[in-house]
Amino acid sequence: SEVKKIAVIAGDGIGPEVVGEALKVMKKTEELFGYQFEFEHGLFGGIAIDEKGTPLPQETLDICKKADAVLLGAVGGPKWDNNSKELRPETGLLGIRKALGLFSNIRPANVFDCLKEASTLKPEVLEGTDLIVVRELTGGIYFGEKFRREGANGEEAVDTCVYNVQEVERIVRQAFDIAMTRSKRLASVDKANVLETSRLWREVVNRIAPEYPEVELEHVLVDNCAMQLLRRPSSFDVIVTENMFGDILSDEAAMLTGSIGMLSSASLGEGSFGLYEPVHGSAPDIAGQGISNPIATVLSVALMFRLTFGYHEAAQVIEDAVKNVLDAGHRTGDIAVDKSTAIGTTAMGDLIVAAM
Amino acid sequence: SEVKKIAVIAGDGIGPEVVGEALKVMKKTEELFGYQFEFEHGLFGGIAIDEKGTPLPQETLDICKKADAVLLGAVGGPKWDNNSKELRPETGLLGIRKALGLFSNIRPANVFDCLKEASTLKPEVLEGTDLIVVRELTGGIYFGEKFRREGANGEEAVDTCVYNVQEVERIVRQAFDIAMTRSKRLASVDKANVLETSRLWREVVNRIAPEYPEVELEHVLVDNCAMQLLRRPSSFDVIVTENMFGDILSDEAAMLTGSIGMLSSASLGEGSFGLYEPVHGSAPDIAGQGISNPIATVLSVALMFRLTFGYHEAAQVIEDAVKNVLDAGHRTGDIAVDKSTAIGTTAMGDLIVAAM
Ligand SMILES: CC(C)[C@H](C(=O)O)[C@@H](O)C(=O)O
Ligand SMILES: CC(C)[C@H](C(=O)O)[C@@H](O)C(=O)O
Repeated sequence: SEVKKIAVIAGDGIGPEVVGEALKVMKKTEELFGYQFEFEHGLFGGIAIDEKGTPLPQETLDICKKADAVLLGAVGGPKWDNNSKELRPETGLLGIRKALGLFSNIRPANVFDCLKEASTLKPEVLEGTDLIVVRELTGGIYFGEKFRREGANGEEAVDTCVYNVQEVERIVRQAFDIAMTRSKRLASVDKANVLETSRLWREVVNRIAPEYPEVELEHVLVDNCAMQLLRRPSSFDVIVTENMFGDILSDEAAMLTGSIGMLSSASLGEGSFGLYEPVHGSAPDIAGQGISNPIATVLSVALMFRLTFGYHEAAQVIEDAVKNVLDAGHRTGDIAVDKSTAIGTTAMGDLIVAAM
Repeated sequence: SEVKKIAVIAGDGIGPEVVGEALKVMKKTEELFGYQFEFEHGLFGGIAIDEKGTPLPQETLDICKKADAVLLGAVGGPKWDNNSKELRPETGLLGIRKALGLFSNIRPANVFDCLKEASTLKPEVLEGTDLIVVRELTGGIYFGEKFRREGANGEEAVDTCVYNVQEVERIVRQAFDIAMTRSKRLASVDKANVLETSRLWREVVNRIAPEYPEVELEHVLVDNCAMQLLRRPSSFDVIVTENMFGDILSDEAAMLTGSIGMLSSASLGEGSFGLYEPVHGSAPDIAGQGISNPIATVLSVALMFRLTFGYHEAAQVIEDAVKNVLDAGHRTGDIAVDKSTAIGTTAMGDLIVAAM
């Protein structure tokens, strides 16, 4: 088959470790399915600040632009937390999203059987929870003009939240499309009783809705959504919302499943290009010890296979392998009930590869 | 003692019912403690739209301005949901906050023993949860300029989030002051890795912190806070944050306690003036049936006594009476495990008054 180019940006903290295991899994699929991957590595985040003086070097961006998909580990750490804005890992993250036109962040939040107990929610409330947050990723208050000025009452800071019709349309269409492949329920989250951008958002959603007569649509105010996620998580299927609300709600949703160390994510643009990364962060406290959990990154590869390459069979093989390894009782420290039996990062990766 | 003027704005849905019981409780304190209250009633919200053509009539505002404190029931309902902005109950709510200078919203989220089971969180996680969200209420994206315009890609909507140093200072000082009366832990929530207003916010917090050397301060990013509230609710004491984040987080915090029908709130300005209201909404589905739970509104009176009048003894009497009535097993329908034993709104109010 055709050679697929993968940009690999391992990043900081546990990023390189977990990405290493995901690469082993990808190589195994070359063997099993005859795929061909060409990996190009790029510096990104804190390590890029240290080595290149910027979180997102032009070479890295070029590697990503030439690639069919990007596999990202994680970025950030206390070392760079007090840097000025241009020298912070997050600035690289925002920069790469914008530069690659990744307007949509797909965050599945589902419950792993073996992790049910890890949630702080009662198991009966969590039962059947399997939702996806579709978050707009290149607009809103993240990217609007920001500045300081002298006001009537001294110094003031300003952030601007802007959305145009087209930006809302494309993310909303994508959310409807995803809902069509699932339980056909879509919750559009906004704050239309206060914000003008939310009123525009709701108008666009209502205009597009008739194109998807099979999808059951509800509008939910963001404060209410934060409550309903706790009250009735399993009643949600697809949630679509703007950038800032999506940041908050996707993390809340991930945490309530108790599976946060296992969750993958995709950031998509036009076409099939996508950036895939685990939801968990760079976990600087355990970096370099070989004890991190590579499963979220491995599952991010499965997501890449499905959404960018249409390699559904291989994606299924990866997902099944993860499930089998977990069912056999293997656990990294973060998900082990009895920590003394926990296995390391590479052992987990090897087991998954062996189970494929 | 001095006559205290109370503006009573019952509002919509169950508002009038629950406020009615709270007034009985206040009258009982006149008897017990020799207080003197003068009640002036004003129209507000949906009912004011229907009767006066505006959610916040000038007369109502005048009544509030002349009062020492305001007791508010609840506003809103499906009847007015599709009205234009100026004719919506929420617009009245935003208007009254701004007009009365209520820059601080105090939302205690604590667990009632009798309602532990009502939470979707595991009891052992919830154990000891007793936090207060201090939300900035008259600034930020709620009140910044909002408009539509033609952009390069068609119509766009704009909201502006603005904070000046003074606005941040007064709310942050208040939060530190509240923390000093409690466990002396303060979490300041922002999105300083993205927003300029958050960077200003954090600067101000860090500048004020040395004035309160006993308070243990942590800065928490809003997405992380949404997660930590779920993960370790009992580790929070006072949370202070800006308007939009506070809207979301205070509702999340309220819901996780399982006690949302029992929680009170205060909106404060400079000086001792305050507006007090239950956290629950107008519950149009059960309005007029006499089955609503008046406890949150009764506890809002206790909060008023403490924060505006310094009537601590009477506040304690009210809180103890509520506790005793609950301990004796009396429940309204919303909190009854066995619905067939539930009592109505006035019966609950009478029991509380009798227990005082
Ligand atoms: C690091 C930060 C800028 C980023 C965001 O807010 O988008 C992160 O929280 C995320 O969700 O990917
Ligand atoms: C009704 C709405 C405008 C209001 C707000 O967002 O402030 C409400 O959610 C609240 O928290 O009091």
